[in-house]
Amino acid sequence: MKVELENIKPQDIEKRSFEIITEELGERTFAPSQELIIKRCIHTSADFEYADSLCFSPEAVQLALKAIQNGACIVTDTQMAKSGINKKVLAKFGGEVYNFMSDEDVAQEAKSRGITRAAVCMEKAAALDKELIFAVGNAPTALVRLYELIQEEKIRPRLIIGVPVGFVNVVQSKELIMETDVPYIIAKGRKGGSNIAACICNALLYMLSKDRN
Amino acid sequence: MKVELENIKPQDIEKRSFEIITEELGERTFAPSQELIIKRCIHTSADFEYADSLCFSPEAVQLALKAIQNGACIVTDTQMAKSGINKKVLAKFGGEVYNFMSDEDVAQEAKSRGITRAAVCMEKAAALDKELIFAVGNAPTALVRLYELIQEEKIRPRLIIGVPVGFVNVVQSKELIMETDVPYIIAKGRKGGSNIAACICNALLYMLSKDRN
Repeated sequence: MKVELENIKPQDIEKRSFEIITEELGERTFAPSQELIIKRCIHTSADFEYADSLCFSPEAVQLALKAIQNGACIVTDTQMAKSGINKKVLAKFGGEVYNFMSDEDVAQEAKSRGITRAAVCMEKAAALDKELIFAVGNAPTALVRLYELIQEEKIRPRLIIGVPVGFVNVVQSKELIMETDVPYIIAKGRKGGSNIAACICNALLYMLSKDRN
Repeated sequence: MKVELENIKPQDIEKRSFEIITEELGERTFAPSQELIIKRCIHTSADFEYADSLCFSPEAVQLALKAIQNGACIVTDTQMAKSGINKKVLAKFGGEVYNFMSDEDVAQEAKSRGITRAAVCMEKAAALDKELIFAVGNAPTALVRLYELIQEEKIRPRLIIGVPVGFVNVVQSKELIMETDVPYIIAKGRKGGSNIAACICNALLYMLSKDRN
């Protein structure tokens, strides 16, 4: 078998990838504010289902961009998602990324109350005196707890990126967030992931800053 | 709309997820050594395509388990993949995870030679005096450079987990690795990702250690 590699410079790989994605999407059109996010999710996953599954509340992108420009911070439900977010660009606007999953107090609290660590992390975030964007790519229990905290008026997120992946309560947790009046970007169905959560954050950041370093 | 949540304890979520996956796979059977890896990839992605796309070289899993037990280290091509690997369990066997993507010398070398940082990282790994497993979830250029280093007899990986995702040279880079005589676990086609790379590492680790802490 002879493998033929496409000869391409490192700096052109992403551009070429987006060209291929655009080509394969064919006649499909998207709202201009959403297009880059949708294409970046496809770029991250090679999964064209995101063209259909991503849902945006009205003005979600505009509100998210404004929040980032005002220094909003991002809370993730995994270290992986935190690791994937471009923290340098976020820092330009004054924001940082929080993740509490490895905190000892979170582990203890979760164990003693019989809930997930991800749910406890949402409570810990609610106690921060910050403007927050939540990027949930793993734990539906985090979204469910967020929903409850919103109902109890203990938190008012600027945006919820709700893209947990999996089989137990994943679909339902996303539906819950879509019932709130909080701005959201959700991947309906079972799919998502920490990579998708980070990717949506980065798509927003790269709309605001061409320089990624 | 009334959302109904399944009432389930945190510690039972993963078990229930695997039950659903098994149920939906129906009559499909897999080699016993490969089954847990395939199911964990589906668990991580909610994407049943991995039941068809994952390819294993002969004895790949057995050889990988032996390597880990002998203290092999893991090299990743992203911080995200490193972040997702259970490093506590790996450490029980004496291994650790290396990632060089943020190293200043890697960035400089990549720039001056006009190649990707991921390719330079593979060279840096080849210079380590260690038994190595490579977990590549992002950069096809890392797999291509690994292929060349293997041909030049500069490296002899214990296993290559080849699951980069994307559109440019991704399919080809995986085919290249499958031409070598190095043990591999590959996700054929465009799909994969840092999450899948980490997930395959963890699947191997959890075959060796039930205690994940």
